[in-house]
Amino acid sequence: MTTPTLAPASPPTLDDVLAAHERIRPHIHETPVLTSRFIDGAAGASLFFKCENLQKAGAFKARGASNAVFSLTEAQAARGVATHSSGNHGTCLSYAAGRRGIPCTVVMPRTAPQAKKDAVRGYGGRVVECEPSTTSREAVFAEVVAETGAEFVHPYNDPRVIAGQATCARELIAQVEGLDAVIAPIGGGGMVSGTCLTLSALAPGIRIYAAEPEQADDAHRSLKAGRIIADDAPVTVADGLKVPLKDLTWHFVSRHVTDILTVSEAEIVAAMQLIWKRLKIVMEPSSAVPLAAILRNPHVFAGQRVGVIITGGNVDLDKMPWQ
Amino acid sequence: MTTPTLAPASPPTLDDVLAAHERIRPHIHETPVLTSRFIDGAAGASLFFKCENLQKAGAFKARGASNAVFSLTEAQAARGVATHSSGNHGTCLSYAAGRRGIPCTVVMPRTAPQAKKDAVRGYGGRVVECEPSTTSREAVFAEVVAETGAEFVHPYNDPRVIAGQATCARELIAQVEGLDAVIAPIGGGGMVSGTCLTLSALAPGIRIYAAEPEQADDAHRSLKAGRIIADDAPVTVADGLKVPLKDLTWHFVSRHVTDILTVSEAEIVAAMQLIWKRLKIVMEPSSAVPLAAILRNPHVFAGQRVGVIITGGNVDLDKMPWQ
Repeated sequence: MTTPTLAPASPPTLDDVLAAHERIRPHIHETPVLTSRFIDGAAGASLFFKCENLQKAGAFKARGASNAVFSLTEAQAARGVATHSSGNHGTCLSYAAGRRGIPCTVVMPRTAPQAKKDAVRGYGGRVVECEPSTTSREAVFAEVVAETGAEFVHPYNDPRVIAGQATCARELIAQVEGLDAVIAPIGGGGMVSGTCLTLSALAPGIRIYAAEPEQADDAHRSLKAGRIIADDAPVTVADGLKVPLKDLTWHFVSRHVTDILTVSEAEIVAAMQLIWKRLKIVMEPSSAVPLAAILRNPHVFAGQRVGVIITGGNVDLDKMPWQ
Repeated sequence: MTTPTLAPASPPTLDDVLAAHERIRPHIHETPVLTSRFIDGAAGASLFFKCENLQKAGAFKARGASNAVFSLTEAQAARGVATHSSGNHGTCLSYAAGRRGIPCTVVMPRTAPQAKKDAVRGYGGRVVECEPSTTSREAVFAEVVAETGAEFVHPYNDPRVIAGQATCARELIAQVEGLDAVIAPIGGGGMVSGTCLTLSALAPGIRIYAAEPEQADDAHRSLKAGRIIADDAPVTVADGLKVPLKDLTWHFVSRHVTDILTVSEAEIVAAMQLIWKRLKIVMEPSSAVPLAAILRNPHVFAGQRVGVIITGGNVDLDKMPWQ
């Protein structure tokens, strides 16, 4: 067994974002921005919802995955890509690999939902199952890489991925003028880091907030402590937000995020219902966390123009969290 | 009691549509067009979903209602508007009246869902309840008009309403080039009539289809018979499509619609699930009828570019039809 190939660890720059945007444009949607007078009334602010749930493969992660896949040399591409993920990154990496016509392997616990496995396979990727433990995942993943020589694309701690996610904020500031703030949910910090990268370079006057479940508030505690703190197996309905920050995302979050606001599980579900009902979009619990944070902290956003990133729409339609 | 004021009965023209578009532009969204490679694969065609579920008040009927409300003279406006509707038209008329700051009364059976009554009131309109019978509705409605002098805005058999709905197809042909066909669900025929009006004048090469539940196939049978046939209390999950054609909508449908395709209840629910899952939008069962018709009749649309009108998004999120 060999160690998985690691991406270079220096943080991406604005030039990387601009190059990423050109590279991935044929493979992603410029997603629409939706508004609701009713929600604005409830929030006491003007909210502009950037709908990455309407992105290819149903999540913003199609941006970063596409940038990673289409950055590979021909020789690298021939060996394919691999990752471990039971969430949107696995699906989106499979999507991007399928667009380039190269192999993709996703290591996933055998206990992961069947729908997630089907989604990876639906775009042509291969699922390799491991036991639901870090030890098993790392061992199985190392085997996959040793066998295939595939390029490892980490879900967020990868400069190619962060540069790809950063294209979302670039679209948003072209679509909506005069934003005062942008808020996104934070798990590993890929979207928030990309937002920091773009806004700090192109629109440094826009404040950046992150939002997180109280029950998985590792990023909030990290920002207060000034160092990365990881949660031990957090439990939250916002299942996309359980993973910890890593060095590259900490680099951006620690420098550019004004505050990380936390919300309760009930607040997440209520905000999710409000968005489904008023914006008429299907989105994940994780994507409701920023609106929940705005509604809980009206003094922070009163009268302002706020971009709100709706990160993904891959949700089990047979089990609504309010039912 | 006096007879309700009737709108002039001559069919609207392209000039009416252009005037309507200027008039309502500040009050409506230019709704986005979404696509799905997966759904295209299933259909064997390129489908462009025009998302009127993302329209103000959650339905295309905000267009026609806004055009009617903002066409009124000051004297008429001062007396307000009235309609009978337990569906989107009542909500949308209340929305439009609220934008102009004039009274709106909606007569609705006392058995109508609480959510529909709340929606009318949420935009500032007044709900007057009647018994769930045509006799009671007509009597109560006549009383309302006698008391208030309000202008009657019919849900579809009104030239101002049809001209408003026609602005949707005008947006669509500006957003998507080279369409071969457009398909919309048909109930009373307001959206289909507006589509006929716009396309026959501006893009006569685009074929127009309507789609209807088998269990409420009055428009299909009307087109075959060459005269309006009304169903007697049809039962379908697509509850927006139960009403019959009237003279103004029959004028357009009989002249310009290529065919009216019918689908089963199970096909409607399956198409609805497919749209929720793949397009990540919340929409009504009625809005799924066109996709169901395309999937049932692949030979009609094979390889073509087809505009599909998603008419509305006001659905009870606690009761999915597939649960």
